[in-house]
Amino acid sequence: MANPLFDDRDVDLILNDLVGLDRLLALPAFAGHDRETLQLFLDASRSLARDRLFPAYRSIDAEPPRLVDGKVIVHPRMHELYAQLRELGVIAAPRPEEVGGAQLPRAVFALATAYLCAANLSAYAYAGLTQGAAHLIEAFGSAELRALYLPRMYSGAWTGTMALTEPQAGSSLADLTTTADPTPEGHYLLRGSKIFISGGDQDLTENIVHLTLARLRGAPAGMKGVSLFCVPKRRPAPGGALVDNDVAVTGVIHKIGWRGLPSVVLAYGERGDCHGWLVGEPHQGIRYMFQMMNEARIMVGLNGVATASVAYHEALAYARERTQGRPLGAKDPASPPVPIIEHADVRRMLLRQKAIVEGGLALLVRASAHADLAEHATDPAERARSALLLDLLTPIAKSFPAEAGFEANALALQIHGGYGYSSEYLPEAWLRDQKLNSIHEGTTGIQAADLLGRRALAQGGAALAALGAEIAQATGRARRAGIDAAWIAELERAVGTVGALTATLAKRGMGGDPAGMMLHARDYLELFSIVVIAWQWIELAAIAKEALAAGTREAGYCEAKLAAAQYWLRTELPRIDHLARLCETAEDSYARLDPAWL
Amino acid sequence: MANPLFDDRDVDLILNDLVGLDRLLALPAFAGHDRETLQLFLDASRSLARDRLFPAYRSIDAEPPRLVDGKVIVHPRMHELYAQLRELGVIAAPRPEEVGGAQLPRAVFALATAYLCAANLSAYAYAGLTQGAAHLIEAFGSAELRALYLPRMYSGAWTGTMALTEPQAGSSLADLTTTADPTPEGHYLLRGSKIFISGGDQDLTENIVHLTLARLRGAPAGMKGVSLFCVPKRRPAPGGALVDNDVAVTGVIHKIGWRGLPSVVLAYGERGDCHGWLVGEPHQGIRYMFQMMNEARIMVGLNGVATASVAYHEALAYARERTQGRPLGAKDPASPPVPIIEHADVRRMLLRQKAIVEGGLALLVRASAHADLAEHATDPAERARSALLLDLLTPIAKSFPAEAGFEANALALQIHGGYGYSSEYLPEAWLRDQKLNSIHEGTTGIQAADLLGRRALAQGGAALAALGAEIAQATGRARRAGIDAAWIAELERAVGTVGALTATLAKRGMGGDPAGMMLHARDYLELFSIVVIAWQWIELAAIAKEALAAGTREAGYCEAKLAAAQYWLRTELPRIDHLARLCETAEDSYARLDPAWL
Repeated sequence: MANPLFDDRDVDLILNDLVGLDRLLALPAFAGHDRETLQLFLDASRSLARDRLFPAYRSIDAEPPRLVDGKVIVHPRMHELYAQLRELGVIAAPRPEEVGGAQLPRAVFALATAYLCAANLSAYAYAGLTQGAAHLIEAFGSAELRALYLPRMYSGAWTGTMALTEPQAGSSLADLTTTADPTPEGHYLLRGSKIFISGGDQDLTENIVHLTLARLRGAPAGMKGVSLFCVPKRRPAPGGALVDNDVAVTGVIHKIGWRGLPSVVLAYGERGDCHGWLVGEPHQGIRYMFQMMNEARIMVGLNGVATASVAYHEALAYARERTQGRPLGAKDPASPPVPIIEHADVRRMLLRQKAIVEGGLALLVRASAHADLAEHATDPAERARSALLLDLLTPIAKSFPAEAGFEANALALQIHGGYGYSSEYLPEAWLRDQKLNSIHEGTTGIQAADLLGRRALAQGGAALAALGAEIAQATGRARRAGIDAAWIAELERAVGTVGALTATLAKRGMGGDPAGMMLHARDYLELFSIVVIAWQWIELAAIAKEALAAGTREAGYCEAKLAAAQYWLRTELPRIDHLARLCETAEDSYARLDPAWL
Repeated sequence: MANPLFDDRDVDLILNDLVGLDRLLALPAFAGHDRETLQLFLDASRSLARDRLFPAYRSIDAEPPRLVDGKVIVHPRMHELYAQLRELGVIAAPRPEEVGGAQLPRAVFALATAYLCAANLSAYAYAGLTQGAAHLIEAFGSAELRALYLPRMYSGAWTGTMALTEPQAGSSLADLTTTADPTPEGHYLLRGSKIFISGGDQDLTENIVHLTLARLRGAPAGMKGVSLFCVPKRRPAPGGALVDNDVAVTGVIHKIGWRGLPSVVLAYGERGDCHGWLVGEPHQGIRYMFQMMNEARIMVGLNGVATASVAYHEALAYARERTQGRPLGAKDPASPPVPIIEHADVRRMLLRQKAIVEGGLALLVRASAHADLAEHATDPAERARSALLLDLLTPIAKSFPAEAGFEANALALQIHGGYGYSSEYLPEAWLRDQKLNSIHEGTTGIQAADLLGRRALAQGGAALAALGAEIAQATGRARRAGIDAAWIAELERAVGTVGALTATLAKRGMGGDPAGMMLHARDYLELFSIVVIAWQWIELAAIAKEALAAGTREAGYCEAKLAAAQYWLRTELPRIDHLARLCETAEDSYARLDPAWL
């Protein structure tokens, strides 16, 4: 059987039994949808992913984009894939109807894009980046900008990019130096350089719109002096023709993965003729970007889950087919070898992947449902609560799939043995793809600092309390379903650990020792992630148990869920005690390490 | 500064203060050496590594070998590198003088090869594989075979390979099907196929000697029916000319790393004219191979340490040069950005790499010193004890650098941020290189089964007892040096945990539940590895403390050792409690997972 990318049964279970699609469909914002229309979109995405995007993955990975005469030429097959993604309407799908969208619930959209990313993350990225860039214009742009750009971008006629990073500044947006000078005509003249711009050039569309961070002449130093500009590759001249806008491609980065999507170096205004249009108010660029950041980070998390999932399914199929060795204690060397899935250590590697992939997907869809509720719930208190939860969960939703997913991808390769180490098989490509997710849109270190330094403390503990209430609902459901009391107790104890630890660290920070508070931010993130994924697994277990009792889902499918839940709650969750101790004691081996000693 | 590959001070410290070179030099076997001759070899290896092998690494990685008209063409620069490795005499260096070697202590040889592998592991591999193959002939071959092959192989005029794996059998040597039919002339006719044969073809030398496992016609099934043959690519015809020996290259594997070294598929006897010569007795092939296996596995471990080390030094240099961001709490955005090594999380990533690399190197050199003592100690009891320790430590020495080293390599990439994700920088190449080490010469799963199922129980616990005595020596030294009593107590407790756990598991196995005993073999291996590396760090810490007191080594260098020791003893070592619990309780999530459920 061809790689299914995801198990369709999981998609159904997560949507219906975990996040509760009915609750979303009851919102006025989604009145235009019903189960059938949503299922149609899911089915169409799944088919496109399986039948078109996935079969093209290997050849696209093998032939990355080339820079020819200052223009990027993408893989020939990308043209047909991009056209099919446009046809699916995926770029505007979650946006409102008034800008050409389908106002699809984010939770459903996340599942649809999960298939697309698992099949071919580079192909989907053109659409995803364009959606993000257009959304910035939709949210903050003037009526003129909206009228010009939104129809073209949401239809996919033009693509979009996020042009933040500069060579000298890396993750430090405070140090951006690209400048923007006002002109009497109302536009600005931009000068500067950007690096790692995904989709920064391509030959798929007639135009590309770079949402660019730059400083107005005389702006204050640091983050507070950064503004957002809309800078097309080709600008509309009077009469409507598109003319070159002096954004030059000066290099292509040879990325080790995502090899269907160019990452380029851009030079703005080398001839002094690069026009940009201010989006929103001056000096608000960082704020605007950060308002879109949760969305972008959820997208990275989905990519991480998708990349781990496609590899997991490949490894599972391989482990069933490949015969090698005999069961422990089988003495007769003439007996036939068994499929390697019969070996306990291979099942260990598969179950670990499963726990990461399915727990990760549940979290991502849950976070997406909170994005829906934060925007569309009718009760303002519910909106606020979901916004708070989304904010709290985002660093985990972004970094857990990247970190644990990388490990899962390495296990998929390992199961393939020597074959896995060759580019004749696909796991090595997904391992390369996955590595980017711990770097782009804020490294794992940045997610850790963001979680502990800001989000976990939001509104004086209200965010943590809201999470605690969510988890309590899940443990309540698990108790009613008859889940092992020891599992539930372990998770409840873990929630207590998170609360107490966060309070201790916050106190340390407020007591004048922010460095001591933040020293083990990375361990805190890992601990927090383990607990959040345990929350997914206790509820997935409860759902499996309910379905077993009611006979509504296949028994084997439910038993596998229970095994994965047990794995996470018994093998992963206990690890938090040691992580908490490191945070709490501020174990100081690297704190006291003088760089000059090394 | 160019990448140093390893810190020379560590090499000096490990050799003199940790394993005690004087003790080795006092053995009659090494009477031909003194400190000066050994230092000369180390210096020559180091220079060759830094000045020749390392500068060629990038271009060799970029252009892997090609198969042209049935012949493998390696990178043009490999010819000059191989010639220089021959000139260094590295192939025969640890072998006795009577076969053309220099009888170098293994401990010194390990350090010399560590530099060579860190610089360019593919280049060194031609020499290493040839040494291993020649050593088999030296140990088990007839006088005729020895006379023909040893001078040519130990001089590097011909290279050697280990031809074990077959496409259908993978790690399962019991299922080999290559056959060997006797002829009246005394040679055998071989027929069959081998896969993943490193260096299985090349255009560096006039001949290649494949040490090949095959079955005599009518041999028993399984491991007990496998014999070892010497099968040259070109065989000496009467008169001495070399003629084609019907070993055809039918494919080249596109490996994702080690890209200077071809991995090929070989077809033996397609024309019915492939001659092989039996090495040693019939049906003893597996036993012979396994007698060389410790050596091959120590070599893999060295590769793992080397690959992690070169990446660590690259990341360290980058973290010192690259400026980005400001210290926690710095409010002035106009203040200059700091080198990223100032950020605690970057130092965390560096210290973790350092702990893995230097702890790993210490272990590998220690294991190599036991190989010296096992062979050359004058006291038979000491020989037996060292053989036992070498046997026990080998699975850890092989797998720890592969697994923890892979993590270290990923951290080196992460420190480079977006640049690390590009092939313009080197960390991604080392990450690819490292991945092979968990697969070849017995996967990590196989090492785990071997450790718990056999080696940890050797001689009714004598192996474990010997290890305990070694560790007790180290903790004694640490106590005398004034190392924190809590660190020592933690390690002593860990040794107790290993002993008690091993006894529990052995009892379970003997009690009729081998599956329950072996279920968490992978966790047992990890636990055991953490303890063994903690042993290295307690003694490295003791040495650092001694040197600080005596003023014999740079203070900062010693302080960094103490910080890394603290990191391992405080951050890693406590993890074993949870791992022990998993083994002890035989946590059964993947045991009870029915493959049909997935």
